[in-house]
Amino acid sequence: MPELRLDPIQKQWVIIATERGRRPQDLYESAPSKKTIFCPFCPGNEEKTPKPIRVFGPDGPLQNGQDWRIRVVPNKYPALQVEGELDPKAVGIYDRVNGIGAHEVIIETPAHDHDLPDLAQDHRRQLLQVYRERVQDLMLDRRLRYVMVFRNFGEQAGATLPHPHSQVIATPITPRIVATELRSAYEHYDQKERCLYCDVVEQEISDGSRIVAMDDQIVAFCPYASRVPFEMHVYPRRHQHDYRLATDTLLGALSRTLGDILERMRVALNAPPYNLILHTSPNPASGAKRGYWQTIDADFHWHFEIFPRLTRIAGFEWGTGFHINPVAPETAAQYLREVRIQHL
Amino acid sequence: MPELRLDPIQKQWVIIATERGRRPQDLYESAPSKKTIFCPFCPGNEEKTPKPIRVFGPDGPLQNGQDWRIRVVPNKYPALQVEGELDPKAVGIYDRVNGIGAHEVIIETPAHDHDLPDLAQDHRRQLLQVYRERVQDLMLDRRLRYVMVFRNFGEQAGATLPHPHSQVIATPITPRIVATELRSAYEHYDQKERCLYCDVVEQEISDGSRIVAMDDQIVAFCPYASRVPFEMHVYPRRHQHDYRLATDTLLGALSRTLGDILERMRVALNAPPYNLILHTSPNPASGAKRGYWQTIDADFHWHFEIFPRLTRIAGFEWGTGFHINPVAPETAAQYLREVRIQHL
Repeated sequence: MPELRLDPIQKQWVIIATERGRRPQDLYESAPSKKTIFCPFCPGNEEKTPKPIRVFGPDGPLQNGQDWRIRVVPNKYPALQVEGELDPKAVGIYDRVNGIGAHEVIIETPAHDHDLPDLAQDHRRQLLQVYRERVQDLMLDRRLRYVMVFRNFGEQAGATLPHPHSQVIATPITPRIVATELRSAYEHYDQKERCLYCDVVEQEISDGSRIVAMDDQIVAFCPYASRVPFEMHVYPRRHQHDYRLATDTLLGALSRTLGDILERMRVALNAPPYNLILHTSPNPASGAKRGYWQTIDADFHWHFEIFPRLTRIAGFEWGTGFHINPVAPETAAQYLREVRIQHL
Repeated sequence: MPELRLDPIQKQWVIIATERGRRPQDLYESAPSKKTIFCPFCPGNEEKTPKPIRVFGPDGPLQNGQDWRIRVVPNKYPALQVEGELDPKAVGIYDRVNGIGAHEVIIETPAHDHDLPDLAQDHRRQLLQVYRERVQDLMLDRRLRYVMVFRNFGEQAGATLPHPHSQVIATPITPRIVATELRSAYEHYDQKERCLYCDVVEQEISDGSRIVAMDDQIVAFCPYASRVPFEMHVYPRRHQHDYRLATDTLLGALSRTLGDILERMRVALNAPPYNLILHTSPNPASGAKRGYWQTIDADFHWHFEIFPRLTRIAGFEWGTGFHINPVAPETAAQYLREVRIQHL
């Protein structure tokens, strides 16, 4: 059983998931090139993944799993496990919780070599709808405080298989980064009675220098304090705290903008490795700590964050939490705006 | 001039250092193998670095720079710059400060292919003394709140040149990670009137399962909530908040233990890339925020942290701040204890 452990100095939780671990040698013995080896996510190899949770065709859920477009399966090497009761314990000065949670894989397409911009517009929208369904479904479990949907593209970004896939990890603890976001938004609302994220979106639109793409529903920009070169954030322009509330129409607009900016990034930066992360509000059914504004839900604003992985995290970052970014976000945004792409 | 920017949501500072930046293409066009190209840190190429701040021979400081053992030079591409006054500004909802600070490089040895365990014991101790001198010297500048000494080994760990070197970055802001450490120690002391770090060290020694090496002055262990496989922390056993107070005798013991555990790591993990980071208390002369215990200095305990870079930081870590570690620290410590090394 994996285990969550709290660092008493950094106040940071760590998942010790030794079931994923192999011998120490496996950590440095280089793997054979991933492209040439067997792919368990390709059509024909369905029996190599655990039994699917959900399977979708172009017209919606499939019963028999034939001619699938998107498959949701349990992770074969889960970081957290779904069976059991939460059992928090003190270990002297330390704290631990057994690793209850969920870890799913969303196989995004049968096409081994595609990335998100290659998907048809309605396929990409369906994927965003599947994200929504997984968040909805996992939040029915009151043990789970947070549902994190993310995507690693490329080996440098942590993808262990090249076939396009997203992951869903639901945790019994509100993650530190989300807790900070909630607290910032709470303090801002407390002072100003406005959503912090709405204020950021407003300022970005009126300034304009960091905007990458925008329509009447969605805005994508390089954030003012970008941690890495070409970091991008994507927000619904109208306030909405919980991704579960996003309509199909809104997800259609989101799909268009995501396709556009990821294609810009691919052309501008030569298909860099990247991480894409959905930030949504925590599970209210779990008693997750949120701000004090639950009734008006001004303590969050769902959004996506995209991190191209062009630079290395080095000692300075590990020691300070500061990032050093060699490209100003204004320069990055201009470069992305001006790059010529095929109309999707 | 580089610029520090505050993220209003993550409350995180970022250094935008565009002077280091080149064209966006340079971020992904792969560099030629670093081993074959010209090395500005090798003997004979001294004029390729900026004018040295300090030069040391085996017997101490050198005037003429001949036959050096350790050289301290300004970083040619500094993340922060030393000239000017701090000039904090609001930019609408955002905050920025001009990038005042210092960025130095410590060239550790004339030998291009050495790593820390290859240095003679007294050479390694001298390097630790040079760390101490640089911290002492930079803390005379009251604009600088924190002095961070760190070392990147291997390209995967962010080293841009293979010749062994450490870096010193002094910042006008107390870094988030250090601020968290200070707050944790303050809260612990407030409640218990004991140093949090001393309690951790005490528990590790009495438990024993995570100890890698120890003598009567220094202890090295894999921390309970290790973020990465084979993470190691190295503490003086007797309480001391400020690295500037470390005696030459203590640094001799530290040098032996550091040499021992880095050699164990090199043998056990096949010379992995790694980061080594000194954590010391912030500059009291700068008015840096610390706990409320400055007179008794129980709010910090200097130590080194070592992060082998065997796993990738992926989307889950970027979105949550959680790390997933596939090797339990008890397993890692046992492996490191049992590996056979040449006596240094």
